[in-house]
Amino acid sequence: MRITAVGGYEEVGRNMTAIKIGGDTIIVEMGIRLDRVMVHEDTDISKMGKSELASKGIIPDDSVVRGDVKAIILTHGHLDHIGAVTILAKKYKNAPIIGTRFTTELIKKEQNFGRLKNPVHTLDTGDILQITPEIGIEFVRMTHSIPHTAMLVVHTKEGKLVYANDFKLDDTPVIGEPPDYRRIKELGSEGIKCMIVETTRVLDGGRTPSEKIAEILVRDNLKKSDPEKGLIVTTFSSQIARIKSITEAASAIGRTPVLLGRSMEKYVGLAEKTEILNLPEDAHLYGAPDAIRKSLKTISDDGREKYLLIVTGHQGEPDALLSKISLRKLAYKIKKDDQVIFSATVIPNPINVANRYSLETKLRLQGARIFKDVHVSGHAYREDHSDLLKMLQPEKIIPCHGDLKMLTSYVELAEDHGYQFNRDIFLLRNGQSVTT
Amino acid sequence: MRITAVGGYEEVGRNMTAIKIGGDTIIVEMGIRLDRVMVHEDTDISKMGKSELASKGIIPDDSVVRGDVKAIILTHGHLDHIGAVTILAKKYKNAPIIGTRFTTELIKKEQNFGRLKNPVHTLDTGDILQITPEIGIEFVRMTHSIPHTAMLVVHTKEGKLVYANDFKLDDTPVIGEPPDYRRIKELGSEGIKCMIVETTRVLDGGRTPSEKIAEILVRDNLKKSDPEKGLIVTTFSSQIARIKSITEAASAIGRTPVLLGRSMEKYVGLAEKTEILNLPEDAHLYGAPDAIRKSLKTISDDGREKYLLIVTGHQGEPDALLSKISLRKLAYKIKKDDQVIFSATVIPNPINVANRYSLETKLRLQGARIFKDVHVSGHAYREDHSDLLKMLQPEKIIPCHGDLKMLTSYVELAEDHGYQFNRDIFLLRNGQSVTT
Amino acid sequence: MRITAVGGYEEVGRNMTAIKIGGDTIIVEMGIRLDRVMVHEDTDISKMGKSELASKGIIPDDSVVRGDVKAIILTHGHLDHIGAVTILAKKYKNAPIIGTRFTTELIKKEQNFGRLKNPVHTLDTGDILQITPEIGIEFVRMTHSIPHTAMLVVHTKEGKLVYANDFKLDDTPVIGEPPDYRRIKELGSEGIKCMIVETTRVLDGGRTPSEKIAEILVRDNLKKSDPEKGLIVTTFSSQIARIKSITEAASAIGRTPVLLGRSMEKYVGLAEKTEILNLPEDAHLYGAPDAIRKSLKTISDDGREKYLLIVTGHQGEPDALLSKISLRKLAYKIKKDDQVIFSATVIPNPINVANRYSLETKLRLQGARIFKDVHVSGHAYREDHSDLLKMLQPEKIIPCHGDLKMLTSYVELAEDHGYQFNRDIFLLRNGQSVTT
Amino acid sequence: MRITAVGGYEEVGRNMTAIKIGGDTIIVEMGIRLDRVMVHEDTDISKMGKSELASKGIIPDDSVVRGDVKAIILTHGHLDHIGAVTILAKKYKNAPIIGTRFTTELIKKEQNFGRLKNPVHTLDTGDILQITPEIGIEFVRMTHSIPHTAMLVVHTKEGKLVYANDFKLDDTPVIGEPPDYRRIKELGSEGIKCMIVETTRVLDGGRTPSEKIAEILVRDNLKKSDPEKGLIVTTFSSQIARIKSITEAASAIGRTPVLLGRSMEKYVGLAEKTEILNLPEDAHLYGAPDAIRKSLKTISDDGREKYLLIVTGHQGEPDALLSKISLRKLAYKIKKDDQVIFSATVIPNPINVANRYSLETKLRLQGARIFKDVHVSGHAYREDHSDLLKMLQPEKIIPCHGDLKMLTSYVELAEDHGYQFNRDIFLLRNGQSVTT
Repeated sequence: MRITAVGGYEEVGRNMTAIKIGGDTIIVEMGIRLDRVMVHEDTDISKMGKSELASKGIIPDDSVVRGDVKAIILTHGHLDHIGAVTILAKKYKNAPIIGTRFTTELIKKEQNFGRLKNPVHTLDTGDILQITPEIGIEFVRMTHSIPHTAMLVVHTKEGKLVYANDFKLDDTPVIGEPPDYRRIKELGSEGIKCMIVETTRVLDGGRTPSEKIAEILVRDNLKKSDPEKGLIVTTFSSQIARIKSITEAASAIGRTPVLLGRSMEKYVGLAEKTEILNLPEDAHLYGAPDAIRKSLKTISDDGREKYLLIVTGHQGEPDALLSKISLRKLAYKIKKDDQVIFSATVIPNPINVANRYSLETKLRLQGARIFKDVHVSGHAYREDHSDLLKMLQPEKIIPCHGDLKMLTSYVELAEDHGYQFNRDIFLLRNGQSVTT
Repeated sequence: MRITAVGGYEEVGRNMTAIKIGGDTIIVEMGIRLDRVMVHEDTDISKMGKSELASKGIIPDDSVVRGDVKAIILTHGHLDHIGAVTILAKKYKNAPIIGTRFTTELIKKEQNFGRLKNPVHTLDTGDILQITPEIGIEFVRMTHSIPHTAMLVVHTKEGKLVYANDFKLDDTPVIGEPPDYRRIKELGSEGIKCMIVETTRVLDGGRTPSEKIAEILVRDNLKKSDPEKGLIVTTFSSQIARIKSITEAASAIGRTPVLLGRSMEKYVGLAEKTEILNLPEDAHLYGAPDAIRKSLKTISDDGREKYLLIVTGHQGEPDALLSKISLRKLAYKIKKDDQVIFSATVIPNPINVANRYSLETKLRLQGARIFKDVHVSGHAYREDHSDLLKMLQPEKIIPCHGDLKMLTSYVELAEDHGYQFNRDIFLLRNGQSVTT
Repeated sequence: MRITAVGGYEEVGRNMTAIKIGGDTIIVEMGIRLDRVMVHEDTDISKMGKSELASKGIIPDDSVVRGDVKAIILTHGHLDHIGAVTILAKKYKNAPIIGTRFTTELIKKEQNFGRLKNPVHTLDTGDILQITPEIGIEFVRMTHSIPHTAMLVVHTKEGKLVYANDFKLDDTPVIGEPPDYRRIKELGSEGIKCMIVETTRVLDGGRTPSEKIAEILVRDNLKKSDPEKGLIVTTFSSQIARIKSITEAASAIGRTPVLLGRSMEKYVGLAEKTEILNLPEDAHLYGAPDAIRKSLKTISDDGREKYLLIVTGHQGEPDALLSKISLRKLAYKIKKDDQVIFSATVIPNPINVANRYSLETKLRLQGARIFKDVHVSGHAYREDHSDLLKMLQPEKIIPCHGDLKMLTSYVELAEDHGYQFNRDIFLLRNGQSVTT
Repeated sequence: MRITAVGGYEEVGRNMTAIKIGGDTIIVEMGIRLDRVMVHEDTDISKMGKSELASKGIIPDDSVVRGDVKAIILTHGHLDHIGAVTILAKKYKNAPIIGTRFTTELIKKEQNFGRLKNPVHTLDTGDILQITPEIGIEFVRMTHSIPHTAMLVVHTKEGKLVYANDFKLDDTPVIGEPPDYRRIKELGSEGIKCMIVETTRVLDGGRTPSEKIAEILVRDNLKKSDPEKGLIVTTFSSQIARIKSITEAASAIGRTPVLLGRSMEKYVGLAEKTEILNLPEDAHLYGAPDAIRKSLKTISDDGREKYLLIVTGHQGEPDALLSKISLRKLAYKIKKDDQVIFSATVIPNPINVANRYSLETKLRLQGARIFKDVHVSGHAYREDHSDLLKMLQPEKIIPCHGDLKMLTSYVELAEDHGYQFNRDIFLLRNGQSVTT
């Protein structure tokens, strides 16, 4: 079994791993690196070719992939895991794209736009699919910050490989069920040859708080909000559990939830269609610029105190709705003591920090009250990693989805569990391979 | 009405304020400054005289107090509010010490040791006590991180003064009831001449999470703990709500809670006596060194996996129990994968940071898994301050209990609400007075 | 004497102070706030009216100025001290603008463009000018990071006021002479009624290193540079002493210095014209886009190893030359191991941090070696402030040019010297006045 | 050639490397880890056995050393390189200890105390010594922060190994000569099989400033000092170049330099004996407690303004002289405006931070003015590392003397130079080996 680190082994972002068993290969994820897109904002990404995108570090460089690619597997729908599919998958045109339902529905949207020709298959968690006579794949139910996140198990004659990127261990996840601990422990007792594991938040001690905590924080903050003033919440559009908590809390305080923004419509619309989410009856959801403009006019005319706006723009992205509101060019203008809740952390990149700073400065100059970090992370902290490690007890470990600081922090964690660097746990750089 | 900043106006700690109406004065709080005690650890505090303690910045310098002191009022039982009573109160020997029940019971312990001669009176929240014909005091129910915390209202002919130091606005406080919002709003509508307000956490944006959140964090972490290994939680001895959450969570996972440490016995014992807390039937509580030693021996012999230890030492204090355990001189020695949960933050002082670093390093070298920050703050964050300000709408404000960075951050907050520096909101240095 | 804080008393930037003696007023500085310009980058500053610029916090709000304005005095040529002159001075059209030579030459450039009608007078350091029979002004030689910086003394019947904003105490300033300590001490012994003093770097302990140190750092780094690769230095265009050090070091290693950028031409050209700086004979200086483009083509063709480029863009400003080079749209493209030296610190604002991050990321992706912080500050550190305080011993102090954290840090410093808050040292907010 | 990482490959401190060629082994360094000593301050280090010291992480665990140890080589005299010699060397009792003069003189002091039986040989830089017919060693002149620091070259039939730990590239080192660049480049052109290189400051960008800069900073600060007040400088006792700068600056301002402290006498005394340093004629140097006490009495009686004290205690070590002065138990007590200059950085460890905080708080409470960071580092910054790499161009690299963050930062640096992780550059954990 030869594992090739294609992308995401030197950074947070552009995840891609190739696993070659005999002559056959399966690819896991095809993600982009959003912080690099931002650095090159002055150039038009959509006009760049594949090699330029790779050389700028925006997408993985898949020239290192060997073997006959039999499948492209996606474990969940975040862009750093699926964002390069439309660019990279065409090279492997016979390889089906396989994911859980929410993920494949997202991919099918791209297919509908004609950006993708590969066949797309949905695989439920709990099921095993035989890719070749030698290779079977299984999705194990896992929790993260987007619906239908799976932990991947690759079954081969040489043993099982587990791919846990991304995950948290949430026993009260608001939407969906907790991780399938029974199966995870079963896998551990059957024996795991190798685990590839994310490291994004391994530097944080202890355990990640449950999404349930975020639900309470949202509810408590909304309950305490000033009922006579405007109220805006911004969060990740794909964080459907959070959207649920916010819309329910809106109803509890007698405000009509209005969800606005292009990606809000994309993800929340899909969540409704797939029956993951049932928005309250009175909720509104608009993604098209005209519909948004009209809705904001209505809200502004009718009385902003009757509504709760759920909008895009939590990172201060200049083209997202909250930034546009801060420019005062829409009907809904911030008034003194309007409340803006960031149900998100700043993703720690200087450009996000600057965008958020600009946005918050403008909002404050216009009189807004700002509430930050009404949020919990979707990634495992250090001791969640310990728990997974103890359940699975893999023979070998390859940490991924982090910079060297994160990857090596995982090495130290594994050492505490008796693993030895360069014998049981390996650091790969993008482009490197290891045979186990 | 002349307000004199005696202590706590340049620092976090040693709170003391004198309020003079006509010729009569009431003193609010007599606290010590723990970080200064630590700086001078090489000297014996108990042997220092009052003036040396004041010159070293450990206690307030009360030489600036004017007028006939009619009462010493304590709003809650933390040492930075009551720790200097035994040193300073004797000068005002006729002045009664007045507090809510939990606070006066703490004071009475000192009285029993003969360290204090002043009369001690208990005043319930909701009641008003007439100190002189001109001065009435009222305790309003407030939430913080110790039972029976009160917001003080001083009623005078010249108007009402509110003293809100310390507080948080917790609607689900685990023990006791939420703040008396009805009375607070009533006071606001009656008109407040002046508010003295703490600023310890005003630099934190948004609102402080409820103690309910800490309860869930504690429960979730305990549920996920390894049932075969040792389990130790350390927290503030006077944080009775937290103690309740921890002991209940212990029972839920089938472990016997054992509370150990001198101050643990002092505060928890008092909480039981005053019926604020009912420990589970199987719980144990020991404060004397011999009893602790014996209990640790029993636990160690009987099987550590049956017990949950709740111990002193969350700041890494060298003489607290957790530090002693880390020295391996007691029967209970840390074993590989024993779990230590810090249900506390590090109070941000270099000496605490170093003590915690030493403690954690030792625990880790012995194989412990460490879980930090399973905690929420007991102090109002920025937007809680906004909420209180909107409810009370005082004419004048004097921020206290903070360094200049905190105090001035409150000034900026008040400016957002229309207050003007040096006209409506004043900065005092220790020793300075303002007449309103 | 009535001192009004117009701008710069809540922030670093947009300095402006009004001093009213009897019915006459002198204004000191008319600066802009560059970080606020950046926050509103999406709007066109040049099209905003005065009141919008003030409400967005970009320029001072001069509606609080009282009295008959007799003069506008500028102590040095930085934009946060003179950048709003073209917007604000017209209201006081009879008031002459007074500064030292380098400053008035900068102002005259604006005059030539017709943006300014006020008369402009140059006053040398050491001289006293009688503005009215009651008001004399004197410039005392001071060191900072732009030529001809002066400390202002206002002579009145009521006593002397000193205005020290900005300054450092540099005994080996590379260009020009050290501060006029003799006169400063003399003023101290004559008695100073009030001092207005900057606080930008008072949070830094100790004393600011001399510009001489920067000269050696520049020289040592250039000596060690790879002679076969490209070499670019970026620094503040108005930091003429630094420019001198860099060009001389270029000559010492046999490279031709080429200074490029619009503001580089403006400030360096003026420094040459005023004979403050004599560039080496072989140096080139270009500011016009075409000339720059042509020069870069020549350098690229002729061999980049023969040249040292001195360019604008040390803060990563998107429209400055270094950012443009990083976009690879000019003839000079970064090659592997080209060297880029930042002879500047990042001005600590999230937008600068992000711009520098973007710039450095691009440069690194193109193979550049980056050398940062080859720099010393132009502002007094804490103990320089102590030294000035001891020399001048003013009766009253008003700290300025800082946020509350900086201003209050100065208060604490002054307290160490026996000053008392609210009695001898005062905090003003923009718009507030104090009478002394 | 088999390289075994014994100590210093997971931390800053306890350096030790074994190099086995055929059946013969040479050991390089035997250091201790001072931060671990501090963590266990409550236990008596001198009474611990070797294995306890190793298990607590204080000394390297040399049980992994294989082969017949033929020599113990020390590259310079810092404790993290030689501090465990008295504990570890006895196991290899026939192996001579080899170092440059200043280092072997330090070792001979231990020999005189009977703590060491191994033979001690001095080898000058520039010379090659044949340890066995197969192994020759050479010391190349290098700069660091202690006299006679060498870069080690091991000559074998299989090729040359370079050991550069610690170093900076200082062309104006105040004492001694710059690195032997001629020989370094010659080695590079001859071909280097493997380089072991320190990484302590590789996270800092650019190049380390020269010790010459520290000399100027010291001189400028002393020139500006208040001649009527006390003046104390504290620095590293083994930093002889700094001591030279300080004592010369003392003379220049007419103060008598008095060097005080046990380790001050040890290192400075040795520097005088070995003619590395000639103290000014009027200088005093005392190490014995009684002599120090007497000297402080004399200074205090005679007038502190006549003296400059150079003392131990720059990290706030509780038992060093400066801490003792701060306790006011010696004749020399801090008076208002006495000046204390820290010609050192705080070594970034929470215990040092706390010790310094305690010390500075006490000094400030007593009225001292404090000047910090009058200092430059003795370790190579990132671009110095680039320079050495370009000169030596080793085939393989093993970074050492750092935590994983530092080591991996060096990996990234080497990648910029074309090295590939796991092929050309290797991370070892303590106890691991690599064969090249």
